[in-house]
Amino acid sequence: MTLRAAGRQSLVDTVVEQLRAQLAGGEWQVGDRVPTEHALAEQLQVGRNTVREAVRVLVHAGMLQSRQGEGTFVVSTTDPAAVLRGIQRAGIRDVLELRIALEAEGARLAALRHQPADLERMLGALAAQAELVGAQGQPPYDNLELYADHDVEFHTAVVDAAHNSALSATYGWFSSSVREALVTAHGDQDMPHIDPVDHQALVDAIASGDPDAAEGAARALLDVPKRAVDALLAPGA
Amino acid sequence: MTLRAAGRQSLVDTVVEQLRAQLAGGEWQVGDRVPTEHALAEQLQVGRNTVREAVRVLVHAGMLQSRQGEGTFVVSTTDPAAVLRGIQRAGIRDVLELRIALEAEGARLAALRHQPADLERMLGALAAQAELVGAQGQPPYDNLELYADHDVEFHTAVVDAAHNSALSATYGWFSSSVREALVTAHGDQDMPHIDPVDHQALVDAIASGDPDAAEGAARALLDVPKRAVDALLAPGA
Repeated sequence: MTLRAAGRQSLVDTVVEQLRAQLAGGEWQVGDRVPTEHALAEQLQVGRNTVREAVRVLVHAGMLQSRQGEGTFVVSTTDPAAVLRGIQRAGIRDVLELRIALEAEGARLAALRHQPADLERMLGALAAQAELVGAQGQPPYDNLELYADHDVEFHTAVVDAAHNSALSATYGWFSSSVREALVTAHGDQDMPHIDPVDHQALVDAIASGDPDAAEGAARALLDVPKRAVDALLAPGA
Repeated sequence: MTLRAAGRQSLVDTVVEQLRAQLAGGEWQVGDRVPTEHALAEQLQVGRNTVREAVRVLVHAGMLQSRQGEGTFVVSTTDPAAVLRGIQRAGIRDVLELRIALEAEGARLAALRHQPADLERMLGALAAQAELVGAQGQPPYDNLELYADHDVEFHTAVVDAAHNSALSATYGWFSSSVREALVTAHGDQDMPHIDPVDHQALVDAIASGDPDAAEGAARALLDVPKRAVDALLAPGA
């Protein structure tokens, strides 16, 4: 990399941060048109190419949107990537509680709206996971990645059975970002093993069409790791 | 803009899409190091500057992370911006159900963990909103933006009182992206008015320290618009 390229690269990053700060600070609201490339270049005392690259970064980040012939508009003042980093840095207890929020409501709605294919998908993921489990019910320590994949697939199937695109999108995003944490937790000897019977109970509750029973089963399933984490984090533990 | 710049700009976007597809397709997993700039340039048959700009876009989008001297690593295979667009395109019923998921669990945890300052923040938002409401309890149709701001502030205060950084980050991101929808809903004559008494009941339930009561109050509050939306969407409505 030439020094020139290195200099311009960090300048783009600086302009990205400046624009991000203006968005977060409420200078422009969702729906507002941001100043033209020319005006921003003047305001920030940088070249138009630098502004163009910085705007591109924010368009791809989901904060700005360019409309042909109309200009560039604010679509979000919150940076999705920053939220993702925040969640990745959150403790395992925080992440578990967020899972409970999304899965308990997902299970409620799944009881009301599931299709036969949704139940088949849940059972398929459980069967695939069961094949990997050891004789004493222990996780397959030499294949935790695949085990975690089947676990994510089961819980995603539950949430998707709610047939709510906003819930599925949020859960899918969230679960892909915590997959590593799941692999770690499965391999942690201090964490309790997942009981396949509890998973089956959740499928049965959803199949029965009872939202309260489904929410209860979803909470019961996640209550096991939640209690273990609370105990590990308790003062004096 | 010169033609040369325009051509390179769209090439960067093309490379961004190619890399995003490789991430979504599972070619690289979270934690993997992606090939070097040089290798990617060879593979995609583009210049190294183009690869560098595309990688920068994905770093800012929260999908890749550059570590000095180590290379570039995958931190998420899901594009946060795409999730945000999915939520923004979801119907109002889907968005309400996602709110219920986050706020019901937020209220539960808030009952267990709230601090005095959390309750003050909730009451402050309610007082500010009450000043804007008309004599018959109707929303201030000439000032819906500010009214929606106080409403978002109240509900954010409830979720923040759970003292869970993952929940707060997800809710803050989500609520900023649906603020426009809130303004529209407040101005929609077919939507029921929000009852200040219900908001006060939620504060009281949280203050009492009872998680079941707090969850119930949070659900009751959102059940009003949920029923209205369900009725508007029902076949034959």
